[in-house]
Amino acid sequence: MTRRQLHLNAFLMTTGHHEASWRLPESDPHAHVDLAHYVRLARIAERGTFDSLFLADGPQLWSSVAQRPAGALEPITLLTALATATEHIGLIATASTSYNSPYNLARKFATLDHISGGRAGWNIVTTAGAEAARNFGLDAEPAHAERYARAAEFLDVALKLWDSWEDDAIVADKAAGVWGDDAKIHPPRHQGRYFSVEGALNVPRTPQGYPLLVQAGSSEDGKRFAARYAEAVFTAQQTIEDARAFYADLKSRAVAAGRDADHIKVLPGIVPVIGSTEAEARANERVLEDHIVHTHGVDRLERLLHLDPGTLDLDGPLPADLPPESAIEGAKSRYTLIVELARRERLTVRQLIGRLGGGRGHLTFAGTPEQVADTIGLWFGSGAADGFNIMPAVLPSGLDAFVEHVVPILRARGLLRTEYGSSRRTLRERYGLPRPANQHVLAPALV
Amino acid sequence: MTRRQLHLNAFLMTTGHHEASWRLPESDPHAHVDLAHYVRLARIAERGTFDSLFLADGPQLWSSVAQRPAGALEPITLLTALATATEHIGLIATASTSYNSPYNLARKFATLDHISGGRAGWNIVTTAGAEAARNFGLDAEPAHAERYARAAEFLDVALKLWDSWEDDAIVADKAAGVWGDDAKIHPPRHQGRYFSVEGALNVPRTPQGYPLLVQAGSSEDGKRFAARYAEAVFTAQQTIEDARAFYADLKSRAVAAGRDADHIKVLPGIVPVIGSTEAEARANERVLEDHIVHTHGVDRLERLLHLDPGTLDLDGPLPADLPPESAIEGAKSRYTLIVELARRERLTVRQLIGRLGGGRGHLTFAGTPEQVADTIGLWFGSGAADGFNIMPAVLPSGLDAFVEHVVPILRARGLLRTEYGSSRRTLRERYGLPRPANQHVLAPALV
Ligand SMILES: Cc1cc2nc3c(=O)[nH]c(=O)nc-3n(C[C@H](O)[C@H](O)[C@H](O)COP(=O)(O)O)c2cc1C
Ligand SMILES: Cc1cc2nc3c(=O)[nH]c(=O)nc-3n(C[C@H](O)[C@H](O)[C@H](O)COP(=O)(O)O)c2cc1C
Repeated sequence: MTRRQLHLNAFLMTTGHHEASWRLPESDPHAHVDLAHYVRLARIAERGTFDSLFLADGPQLWSSVAQRPAGALEPITLLTALATATEHIGLIATASTSYNSPYNLARKFATLDHISGGRAGWNIVTTAGAEAARNFGLDAEPAHAERYARAAEFLDVALKLWDSWEDDAIVADKAAGVWGDDAKIHPPRHQGRYFSVEGALNVPRTPQGYPLLVQAGSSEDGKRFAARYAEAVFTAQQTIEDARAFYADLKSRAVAAGRDADHIKVLPGIVPVIGSTEAEARANERVLEDHIVHTHGVDRLERLLHLDPGTLDLDGPLPADLPPESAIEGAKSRYTLIVELARRERLTVRQLIGRLGGGRGHLTFAGTPEQVADTIGLWFGSGAADGFNIMPAVLPSGLDAFVEHVVPILRARGLLRTEYGSSRRTLRERYGLPRPANQHVLAPALV
Repeated sequence: MTRRQLHLNAFLMTTGHHEASWRLPESDPHAHVDLAHYVRLARIAERGTFDSLFLADGPQLWSSVAQRPAGALEPITLLTALATATEHIGLIATASTSYNSPYNLARKFATLDHISGGRAGWNIVTTAGAEAARNFGLDAEPAHAERYARAAEFLDVALKLWDSWEDDAIVADKAAGVWGDDAKIHPPRHQGRYFSVEGALNVPRTPQGYPLLVQAGSSEDGKRFAARYAEAVFTAQQTIEDARAFYADLKSRAVAAGRDADHIKVLPGIVPVIGSTEAEARANERVLEDHIVHTHGVDRLERLLHLDPGTLDLDGPLPADLPPESAIEGAKSRYTLIVELARRERLTVRQLIGRLGGGRGHLTFAGTPEQVADTIGLWFGSGAADGFNIMPAVLPSGLDAFVEHVVPILRARGLLRTEYGSSRRTLRERYGLPRPANQHVLAPALV
């Protein structure tokens, strides 16, 4: 019996998760459209035997391109190119249920799963913000609850589409001239509130059955959705206590929904800033902080908190009269996390911007490789995490440093595989999850 | 001054364009989801210095999977994987303007163009048939004219999105902390009949500016659309006279629209069945014909002609009282081509099925490599074609035979490049087309 294994996901972001990373001498400001940059990152992560790679996404250009690298290659497309440059690592693409149609999106993920030999994952998001809505014929963003209702129906349709071919629907009888068995094709014939989708998918069932389902919203609606559908959950947690409470809550919700608690993996994000001594790590962190342009930070914080421009005072605290989470129709859980962080640590706006600059609300940790491994081990060993979303402040160097210096420690402690091995091929297998049965096929015990 | 060059496009289709190709001993009936199969095809075409590869598509599963390999990987995704396996060849994906949103689709093509270094092309189709419509919330297919009106607005929006970043919008001034120039970002702010799209694309302008625009509908509406937007046109033509008339008509329409006649390339399809003698070629063709299941052919022909099941008599002619093209809301030009072919050659339904089995209405030509090269040269040299859509009946063997035996003849005659060379890198350059200026930047002469 092997020890419980840590799951590592490399959250890739152009020149790094720190908003000022692009200004460092080592960074390429055109990296965001350079396939070679992403191939390099993917190969470093594969050297570190990570479970998966991950790309965030939203169908809009953020406000000002002056502030930092803006725009990004579309994740499913980019990960397809990375599938051909790697052999083992999982490939998780973000896509929105609010601004896609189920038939097209289910098909793209099925295609990626076939091309990658079962390594596709979908980070399911509902997409906050009016900017995105206005690119798809709407005047304003749909209400938060509405977005999650649409997401649930979207998933039901996508699952029907992925199961619309039984695994053995292709008979390929050349002599008889019969290629497929029409009785093993199951058109969804779905008529719902948001979608009506009649026909079967035009892609056969995939190696994994369907992509690993990942979810990344931590509001009440988000957790309810995750408990029902998600096989892995990305989350931003600032303290181990909050992370433990989130972890326990999510597992018990999954159990209440009739699922196995082990079949939903929880991965908080961590922004490791590594130095050979603690002092060096802090110095590395300070270099990044010194490159932050604070007027940009104020602008973004005001948007995030839904405040009028010019409201915030750089050297004062957050206003006392901020609205409650229930009044926010955008990204609810991130809003609350930021407000609570500022209040708990009594941060000025300037200090808050410094803290968010590194990871937008994810835990930032500056230290030696041992200290980073200790923190990961502590969270992993005490009911706060099944693994981590590794979010290097600077890329590729931060990922390289993690793989060179932290990964060997985790391996020595028996927490992380030393090689991929040949028994587990698919992303779902790496995460220790079963291949889903087709909803149209009776479970063997029942036949 | 080099001679006018022939353009060759490899139209790929699983085990080949002949509907019975999957039944041959050499064919892999699972090829349609096998990346390695497509990589092999792409590399053969690149060995033959083709201009481009092409994948057809529709967002629906056709009627019965019993008849032949059904379902296909999504083309943009598959071509992205092929971009990494090739170096020079263009990559043309079909996508529908009726069942996509401009923001998402413009972004995917921009991504493919970045990843491939400027080798992306878009075969713009409006998608006939109720099966597709019912996968996207509609009860029936939109009227033909309606689909083309939507397509025109779709293109206008897509062009605005691709031009929403000027080529030099990224300034990357690390010292000043200024990444982009907001004055060089141009949000479309489009409000139209079918779409409203507010914001700029979240991908910078691409190597080609935008993908090569290809069109493949030959109805009146289709030709009007092509004259305005298309840089290359795929077409099915049964006789050189028809092809010449089509060619002249399209060029003069483009000129009337204020365009250069050389900036719209016309590529009819040809299904070459090659043998070392004419008799061997005919024998190869007969083997394929013998594998046709005629009841399947009747089924498909009845759908195509919008007839009730059971109307057609296998050994009789087509009914005399078929409706005129104007009454057809599906694929208009293909309908007319098939009806005229049957009448002109007085074919029985069985014979017509045999003729369509090879290429669904495209010109099928069985002969020696010399004869195939002669036909291509004749059409090319006499105002019927700027190049050809090569549609092998069986894949990979038919493409391999074309490259091994026909390509050397075309090269010896000075019609086809012998190597890609280094001066032309993008797909648009291969087709001899200029890189489009950004609509927001004044032409140099006017500044
Ligand atoms: C690691 C991580 C990655 C995320 N990536 C995305 C993303 O790519 N796109 C997106 O719209 N939301 C993303 N989110 C979710 C948003 O941050 C936000 O929480 C969500 O849109 C709204 O969820 P909520 O209101 O349920 O909290 C991510 C969240 C986490 C924790
Ligand atoms: C070479 C070629 C390839 C085509 N590929 C597609 C395709 O992939 N998907 C599609 O919907 N239509 C495709 N078409 C167009 C249809 O055959 C049909 O002509 C079109 O949908 C309707 O156009 P029309 O009514 O203007 O003739 C293609 C046509 C040609 C000549």
